[in-house]
Formats: sequence, structure tokens, C-alpha cells
Amino acid sequence: MAVGYSILPHLLPVPGIRLGTTKAGIKYTNRRDLVVIELAEGTQTAAVFTQNAFCAAPVQVAKSHLSNAIPHYLLINTGNANAGTGHNGLEDAKQCCQLVAENVGCSFSEVLPFSTGVIGESLIMNVFQDGIPNAIANLSESGWEDAAHGIMTTDTIAKGLSEELEFNGKTITITGIAKGSGMIRPDMATMLAYIATDAAIDCSLLQELLNSAAKCSFNRITVDGDTSTNDSCLLMATGASGVQITNNSEELHHFSNLLNSMMQKLAQLMIRDAEGATKFVTVEVDGGANEKECEEVAYTIAHSPLVKTALFASDPNWGRILAAVGRAGVEALDLEQIRIYLGDVLIVENGGRAESYSEERGQAAMEQEEITIRVELSRGESSATVWTSDLSYKYVEINAEYRS
Amino acid sequence: MAVGYSILPHLLPVPGIRLGTTKAGIKYTNRRDLVVIELAEGTQTAAVFTQNAFCAAPVQVAKSHLSNAIPHYLLINTGNANAGTGHNGLEDAKQCCQLVAENVGCSFSEVLPFSTGVIGESLIMNVFQDGIPNAIANLSESGWEDAAHGIMTTDTIAKGLSEELEFNGKTITITGIAKGSGMIRPDMATMLAYIATDAAIDCSLLQELLNSAAKCSFNRITVDGDTSTNDSCLLMATGASGVQITNNSEELHHFSNLLNSMMQKLAQLMIRDAEGATKFVTVEVDGGANEKECEEVAYTIAHSPLVKTALFASDPNWGRILAAVGRAGVEALDLEQIRIYLGDVLIVENGGRAESYSEERGQAAMEQEEITIRVELSRGESSATVWTSDLSYKYVEINAEYRS
Repeated sequence: MAVGYSILPHLLPVPGIRLGTTKAGIKYTNRRDLVVIELAEGTQTAAVFTQNAFCAAPVQVAKSHLSNAIPHYLLINTGNANAGTGHNGLEDAKQCCQLVAENVGCSFSEVLPFSTGVIGESLIMNVFQDGIPNAIANLSESGWEDAAHGIMTTDTIAKGLSEELEFNGKTITITGIAKGSGMIRPDMATMLAYIATDAAIDCSLLQELLNSAAKCSFNRITVDGDTSTNDSCLLMATGASGVQITNNSEELHHFSNLLNSMMQKLAQLMIRDAEGATKFVTVEVDGGANEKECEEVAYTIAHSPLVKTALFASDPNWGRILAAVGRAGVEALDLEQIRIYLGDVLIVENGGRAESYSEERGQAAMEQEEITIRVELSRGESSATVWTSDLSYKYVEINAEYRS
Repeated sequence: MAVGYSILPHLLPVPGIRLGTTKAGIKYTNRRDLVVIELAEGTQTAAVFTQNAFCAAPVQVAKSHLSNAIPHYLLINTGNANAGTGHNGLEDAKQCCQLVAENVGCSFSEVLPFSTGVIGESLIMNVFQDGIPNAIANLSESGWEDAAHGIMTTDTIAKGLSEELEFNGKTITITGIAKGSGMIRPDMATMLAYIATDAAIDCSLLQELLNSAAKCSFNRITVDGDTSTNDSCLLMATGASGVQITNNSEELHHFSNLLNSMMQKLAQLMIRDAEGATKFVTVEVDGGANEKECEEVAYTIAHSPLVKTALFASDPNWGRILAAVGRAGVEALDLEQIRIYLGDVLIVENGGRAESYSEERGQAAMEQEEITIRVELSRGESSATVWTSDLSYKYVEINAEYRS
């Protein structure tokens, strides 16, 4: 059960984008697990990938193909990450692209491969041989919802959203889907996400928009501090709406705001659906000397198993938050100046429990499904916000039993 | 149940040290929770403390007293950490010292206070008023076992050990006790530990010996990456044996080796008894360009919830280890050169699964109660070893229910 999110909304088609999904039987039978996305001629594509040094074979191939050709097809499989698979894994990823290319009649470097699932196992290639033509046969502009389901792994719910913007009587659409609920930590995209618009945006501006939106969305979430080997996030602009978005334009301002907000919501959906999550937690650190130290404090809190188990128990054991702030490694921290809030409840000031604090108020704040932990460092003007989940029995169960 | 450790061995008295333990009722009734340790006149004391910026009131007072006087008494309570308690907490810690001083007739700065337990709650001073005289009445050279029980919190088993060394027909004794099973990570002592010897060692050499031993013992363990606000480790030398240990002596060499080994065993006992632990895990990283990068890789593995849940499940999901190595932030890592072993089983080489690897061999290695994960970086001569535990349902239960 995702926290505060129960159903995939209707996803609007993006002219120029068609999606086809099938049940190829990659790991499980009778489960949508293979998606092909077709980008119309002229579509610009920007991408960000995992920073994990052991990046998976499909990530390596996708990067290489992006530098050689303009993407025309994306191939996404779940159930197997094709990571830690060495030279054979690279060959398999290329072979997957080749299969798509043969079926549609394009060059194999116009195909980008993406995989997510178990690490260290080889792809079984014959399921791709059968599955790819089936996915291609299903290509449709209204294929977004199916594709949102088709990229899920331990996600309990499909994730996506759509928005429209009007410019001078013309409507543009942005639709995005994403998957991710574990092995999530900010070090690039930390999941799979595909966002498309029918606005026309040139490639370098598109990449800037994606980098900037990723910084305050997918790079600001953490479930367990583990960075996946396969994280990828794509932003595609088909231009089919006829609306051109250029540098320094008013359109850019509106588009960029909407994109940031949508990517933030998609990122938050991963946290709402984090493995075993019962809480959606915002950690906000204000008043830092610089953004980096605010991030350090926020992530130290967000990664602390003791804070996360207290959140799971709805226990206002704020001493664990205080201890996390204290060990975050911020130089010359003046403890007397720090204030810590749980929701609206001031819990720590002057180096100890706030006089106004009561266990009842703390308990009431902790019992919420959505909780904000706010730390005021009172030593500057910088701030940082990250989103995280709690640590439950279910998290252990999911990750202790994932391969069985 | 601690992994590979079932019973506190007999602890040898250290002439010059007396210990008294009582049930003061600090948090629970009918549980040993208050310990007084008396150091004979002339005893030298070295100490290391938590690096957490929010260090607890007793740590602040202990540091201040150490700089002003030679310690004569230690007062340790469990059940309440007196941390995050602001100015009142400092007054309470001083008041505890004052109560000891009044009962024994020494100066209050000759008393060092130590507290462990829940953070953020005030000490209830009247239990100390009654408890301290009772603990003092129990002072005895054979009080080590009782004291080992008296400093426990979520520990399931009392931790301690004793060793003897002979020099020119004279015997010296080292006995140590420790507590700790959660909120454990290397950033100084990360627990409470009291180690005493009847050798005569001057104060600055004693401090060097302690720093050096802590570096490769208590600073090399992690349960959950959370650094306590109260960690303290004391090394005391009474001199009662008449054996003087001086710089550059052969005695120093033997003593230092034994001390390092004992502190490493005490540190490992904390991991064996880590909250919810079912495995004792050694993470060894060799062939690094420097010690720091080896530590980074080792801790990234040791802190990974995904690795820890796989260990709990005895699942040879080695992809998670590989992903942890990849995100450890080591510059210019050559993936082709890296080898990863589970026990004796080579699992990763040439960027993927080793040809000789089989699931059966991996499974057999993972089913052991004591597991070594070894990573060869093959880029230098440095190495680092850390010890950690797995992440189980029980860990979540203990930490979700600790205050209830």
C-alpha cells in the first residue's frame, strides 16, 4: 500500500509517442514485463543515468547509442537488471537492440535498452525473441498506463501523471511514468522514469531542463541509501504540438516549473510506494551555511535506521533525530542554536528538549502518515529537502525474500 | 542470542580496581543498572569519547573532570543516557558526581559520570540518591561480572574478558567489560567499555595505547551506522603489579599486542550481540590505493540494508555487494580488476559473475553463521577490515519497540 496514493490516474497521450507492452515471461509468467516505446521522427531525447561505477550493461549500451544516434525506440524489461553480467551481458543488451531494429527496420544504435530487476543473472534471450514483436504489435499512443505497469518490479502500484499547458491557444502535454521502490538513493536518477512532451525543445536545452529537474526530484529521495546499477531517466520532446520552447522565453519558465513539479511528484511517488513504507517523510534542513551541509544533515537523518524504525513505530523518539544531526559531520555546529521540529511541534532547542514540548504533542505528530522533520541550523541561508520512508518489518521481508 | 558467544567468562580481578553494582530502578525495577568503579590512588586513566557533536551531558562532564583532576571513581548508569537534556542534564550529571563524592569523601571532579539508554529524558535524581550508597557498599575486586551485567541495555549477554601476561616472573592482568549492540558505528568508541590493568603505565603512553587499540577495534565495527551520543571507552592502569611498562620496551610490545587483541574481541562481541543479529560478518577490502578508500568500500557494504537483508536471508544475492562496491565513491575504479569473495568462493571477476561460481557454492557460504566478504581492488597495497551484522525482523522489532 502506497502512502497517500492509491490509483494510477488517467495518462494523456503525447502525440509522437507510442508505447507497447507485453507479458514476455522474463521472470514471472502472466505479468507485464516488456515495454517498447516508439519516438516519432524528430523527437529530441535527454537522459541521466546512475552514478554507480558498476553500471549495468544496458546503461553502458544506452550511453554509447545516445552518443552515436538519435533514439527512435526504447526497450525496457523488468525481472532482470542485466547487471554484473560482464561481457556476455553487453552482448545480450546489444542483441536486444538488434531484435527491435530488425522488427521495425531501424539501425540498432537507434534503440536504447533499459533493464531492471535482479542483478547478476543473464538475460534469457529467447523470451525477448518472442516478446519484442508482441510489444511492437501493441504500440499505441494510449499505451502509457500499460507501460507504467510494465516497468514495475517490487512497486505495489503503477506510477505516472499527466499535465497540460496552454500557450497562445495551443495545448502541450507532459506525461511521465516511473518505477522504483527500493535500492533508492540520490546519486542520479535512482530508478527508471520516462517523461515525454509534445513541445519542441532542442536537445541541449532539453538536457538542461532534465538535469535541473532531476537535481530537486529524483536526486532528493532515499529509501535505503543503496544506489541501483540501472537507474535511468529520459525526457523526450516530440515537437508534435507545434509549440517551440526556447531559451529565456516565458514558455520555458512555465514549462520548467511544471516539469520540476511533475518530476518531484513522480519521485515522491517512489517514496510513497517505498518497500514496506508506512510513512511518507519530508526532511527539511534550513539555515545552513551552504546547501551541502544541509544535504548532509538531511540524508544522515533520512538514512538512520534508528530514526526510520522510530518512524515506523510512530514513536516520537526525537533523541534519535538529534543524535543523527550530531553525527552528520557539520563543522563547528552550535548546538544551542539548533531547533528541531516534528511537524509543527518544536522538540529541541537550547541543546535539549524544548520547554513547550510534550510527549502527547510529539506522539500526535508522529502518528500522521505524512511527517515533516525540520531542522533549523541557524547559521546561514541555505536549505535542502529530501524525502524518505520508514523502516518496517515489511522492508526486511521484501528484501530478505526478493529472490526466493 | 549472540552469534558464536554464549557466556561471560570468569573475569579476573585487577588489583587496585573495585566495582560495586546495584539495582537502582533507573528505568526498570529489579535489574542491575548502576555501577561504581573505584580506582586506587595512583591509577592512570586514558579515555576516548564519542565524536557526535550532540555529546551527552555526562560525556561533557567527564571530559571536563578529566582535564581538572585524576579520576578516582567512575559512576555508570543504564536506562537513561542523559543526552539531549540541555542545561538541566549537565546539572544532573554534576549532581551525580557530587553524590558519589559525598559518599566516599573525595572531590566531585575526581568522579567521572557515564550514562547509556534512552536519549532526551531527564534523570530521576532520587533513584541515584538511594542507589549510589548501595553500589558503593558493594565495592569489591571481584565485582567485574556484576558490573558487566550492570552496564547492559539492549545487550542480550554480558560482555567481558580477562588475560594475563608474565614479565620476569611477575604477572599482570588485563580485564575489560563492554556494552553495546545498537546505535553502533565507528566514530570513536561507539559504546561503553572499561578496561583495567595492574601494570604501571604513564598517562600519555596509556592514551597512545588506547587510541591505537580503539582505531582497529571499536572504530572498526558498525551495526546500523548510528553513532551514539554517549560512547566512552576507558583504559585504566593501577600499577599494583609493580610491573612498569615504558616506551620502546619489550613489555610494551607484548602488552600492546594483547590489548589490541582484547579490544578487538570486545568490539567483535558487540557485533556478535548486535540487535537482532543472526550473522557475524567480516568485510575485508584489500589492494586499495590507500586505507581510506578501503574503509569506504568496506563501510558501504557493511551499511547497505540490501546486503544486510540478503545476509539475514542467507541469500547469495552477490549483485547487492557488487552494487555497493560500485557506489562507494572510489575514483577511477577499474571494474575488470575487482574480485569479490564470499568466504572462499570467488563470485565476481572481469566485471561479472566468476565462471567458477555456482549458486550452490554461494548458498553454502551464505548459510554460515560467520561470513567473510572479501573485496580485492587490485590497485595498491592498502587494506581495511570492518565487522558488522545482518538486518533482521528482530532489529526492526527491537528498535521500533525500544521505548514502549
